[in-house]
Amino acid sequence: MDNRPLGVFDSGIGGLTVVRALHELLPNEQLIYLGDTARVPYGNKSAETIIRYSREISRFLRSKNVKAIIVACNTASAYALTVLRAELNIPVFGVIEPGVSAALSATHNNRVGIIGTIGTINSGAYQNRLREQNPALAITAQATPLLVPLIEEDWLEHSATRVILDEYLWPLRLAGIDTLVLACTHYPLLKPTLTNLLGHHIALVDSAQTCARFVHEALARDGLLSTADGEPPLEVYLTDLPVHFQKAGGRFLRKTLAHVSVVSVEDC
Amino acid sequence: MDNRPLGVFDSGIGGLTVVRALHELLPNEQLIYLGDTARVPYGNKSAETIIRYSREISRFLRSKNVKAIIVACNTASAYALTVLRAELNIPVFGVIEPGVSAALSATHNNRVGIIGTIGTINSGAYQNRLREQNPALAITAQATPLLVPLIEEDWLEHSATRVILDEYLWPLRLAGIDTLVLACTHYPLLKPTLTNLLGHHIALVDSAQTCARFVHEALARDGLLSTADGEPPLEVYLTDLPVHFQKAGGRFLRKTLAHVSVVSVEDC
Repeated sequence: MDNRPLGVFDSGIGGLTVVRALHELLPNEQLIYLGDTARVPYGNKSAETIIRYSREISRFLRSKNVKAIIVACNTASAYALTVLRAELNIPVFGVIEPGVSAALSATHNNRVGIIGTIGTINSGAYQNRLREQNPALAITAQATPLLVPLIEEDWLEHSATRVILDEYLWPLRLAGIDTLVLACTHYPLLKPTLTNLLGHHIALVDSAQTCARFVHEALARDGLLSTADGEPPLEVYLTDLPVHFQKAGGRFLRKTLAHVSVVSVEDC
Repeated sequence: MDNRPLGVFDSGIGGLTVVRALHELLPNEQLIYLGDTARVPYGNKSAETIIRYSREISRFLRSKNVKAIIVACNTASAYALTVLRAELNIPVFGVIEPGVSAALSATHNNRVGIIGTIGTINSGAYQNRLREQNPALAITAQATPLLVPLIEEDWLEHSATRVILDEYLWPLRLAGIDTLVLACTHYPLLKPTLTNLLGHHIALVDSAQTCARFVHEALARDGLLSTADGEPPLEVYLTDLPVHFQKAGGRFLRKTLAHVSVVSVEDC
């Protein structure tokens, strides 16, 4: 047992979908969330910059005495996970390995699609790991950079979103995929729209839920689960307090954000 | 006369439209551009953060011995211009005053529309200055946060862009505007699409061109124009080298970017 908190970070507020999934599975764990809203988004920035930002945030979370760090951002998981694991002496979890395992379990026809930011898709992180584990897979990866702004604008059901999704999804449809990896922690909010467009026969792999299950199993296996009573409050730190944050944050977390502080991580 | 360079900055690469307009009017001026691509976009971040970033960038440009600074970003102009002017002993130009003057000259029916980022529109910077100078104006301001991602995706003529613009523009049409201020340095790339949608009877005020004319007049008036011969090369500094930067940069500047360096301004 280990009653120290779990640190979770993302480029912005999308990672709150991971916090929600973690809280549902592990209600007794204290969660500390850092959203790098002053430098969001990471999806179209370079590997060097993402690694630098991820190091600064990890130092901040370490200063909060966390027992493990969960990189709740696909772009940061793609670029920075190896570096963070080499440099930190606590477990570091990303969203990619859990998503890869879930996709491998879900597919029956070995045709898997991936949608994510330009950074996540260009990194090849999902494609390489999927191929390593099953060389027979046919993988279709599509960068979908407009989805995060559409989700942040709350245009989930808007006709423009359907037009944009139609354009993004046609190569995946053409490829006959039966499994679609949502390789961005914003995308779980689009699940109903995606199911409407693609039909129920295509399995959607949700980064947030698969990551939370993976973390749960790893903590249980290594004897790191908390034995504290009650539901500790979520501590949220942001590097900038954006306009409409409470509203948007509430949509990702599905509850009101109570304890929010603005911090700088650049000196960390 | 003053042969020192002009410093120009923006949150990203949109401000290259201002560089292009400046270069057309002032081909002998040496231009140094800083695009804060590691922290782009500014449009949905807080005033405090935008001011901090603008200060750091101004210190970087000062270290390059610039004779004036042009804030080629509407959000930074809205939030940081007063602070920069108070702190720097060289002229600091923004894009808002020139846009306001151009809009006042362009309108015949006193109904003016403004489109820009959430930050620019929420700051009220355009609305307040327009009203100060003509209290009889009817102003309709609309935040249009999806336009920058659409422009960066190069979907200028895409059906999704038309659907989104239709939604954003209907309150402006309803208000019967005859003048639309494009209060973001990305938006000049949308001018043909906007003219198609709105018709030629609505004047489009282009931040980039109006700013360049304003700077030209001010430098001439104050005897600060360069007397150097030839066309000095454009120096471009970025805080991150994003994917597809050359392609996107070329679209904003309409020529290939030759001298690009990646720098950090956080220590400035």
